[in-house]
Amino acid sequence: MTEIGVLLFENFETLDVFGPVEIFGRLQAHYNIKFYSQYGGSVSNAHGVNLLTDMIMDTNMSFDIFLIPGGYGTREAVENEELMKLIKSISNNSKIIFTVCTGSGLLAKTGLLSGKKATSNKRAFDWAMAQDETVVWQKKARWAVDGKYYTSAGVSAGMDMALGYLADNHGINFARKVAYEIEYTWQENKDMDEFYLQNFEENT
Amino acid sequence: MTEIGVLLFENFETLDVFGPVEIFGRLQAHYNIKFYSQYGGSVSNAHGVNLLTDMIMDTNMSFDIFLIPGGYGTREAVENEELMKLIKSISNNSKIIFTVCTGSGLLAKTGLLSGKKATSNKRAFDWAMAQDETVVWQKKARWAVDGKYYTSAGVSAGMDMALGYLADNHGINFARKVAYEIEYTWQENKDMDEFYLQNFEENT
Repeated sequence: MTEIGVLLFENFETLDVFGPVEIFGRLQAHYNIKFYSQYGGSVSNAHGVNLLTDMIMDTNMSFDIFLIPGGYGTREAVENEELMKLIKSISNNSKIIFTVCTGSGLLAKTGLLSGKKATSNKRAFDWAMAQDETVVWQKKARWAVDGKYYTSAGVSAGMDMALGYLADNHGINFARKVAYEIEYTWQENKDMDEFYLQNFEENT
Repeated sequence: MTEIGVLLFENFETLDVFGPVEIFGRLQAHYNIKFYSQYGGSVSNAHGVNLLTDMIMDTNMSFDIFLIPGGYGTREAVENEELMKLIKSISNNSKIIFTVCTGSGLLAKTGLLSGKKATSNKRAFDWAMAQDETVVWQKKARWAVDGKYYTSAGVSAGMDMALGYLADNHGINFARKVAYEIEYTWQENKDMDEFYLQNFEENT
């Protein structure tokens, strides 16, 4: 059984968490998901979500997969020294790290992504880059993989990355079947990023 | 402010809920989301999710938008007479009803979809149809709209439907901007259903 630990903090982005959770959650023969936060208890976000979590016990915790979401809460989380210490040590201890959206900014801030390829949300890319400019930031990527670090672009891209991880570990047909079951049009190519350099007027 | 009430029951499907919640949740100038269940308190599912909800007070409740998700829990929910009574009256009282996936089976069971166009998950279509065969079931649809009833196909299709509702109410550019912000490739055409009649081997 592959144990997945999902980190939550106030004002996490809803789909950053629940996109991958939908994908791994239905594979109960292979994956088991638990939700954690710095102090445990209920963690909420601006979308009205109130999720119950377990407390992160100490810096010795480790997971087979550690998922770090993004969202506006990352701006506060990155200033929370105790939380950042936990993120760094748990990421060090864990076998695979996933970040979705600006979650890569949190991971970058720990220094663990230095010299590694990583990506982030296209609309908060400057913020992510500013956390560590020695990361080999990939501006055009649906998701990036460098060793144990899987980092995705914004929000929905976390689902494509989760399916990409399934393809890497169980074969592409396995991943395609999961995408089919949830009627999701999977972008299978991590380098195919249709959201790179798009521009939309802000006044709609 | 448009008030959205999301119905939760044990073993709801994660993304049926949180796909639309991501989309409406970020539009805080327009939409406010609250989560409800028959008895209130924490509602969980097999993906490890534990969500805090308010209790549905009585059959007089109404929302601007009432969202009914699907998931394996619908098989039990449909046998819960008290819950079905609440679903029927709240759906009657509310201005717009969304169902995602097998959520349309629950709504069909109330009789409110009789004679109306509706769709459901392609892999549980027979179950949904069996709840009321007088519904004009749409086997090939990403989502269907009939008056106040918006019903979507499986899981991810709920996001396309939510964006479709935004397009219907705020214009297509508004909906496209939201899809862009969450880096989601929106299937804009409700009749374009790539999951219709696909077949995958079950042994992968």
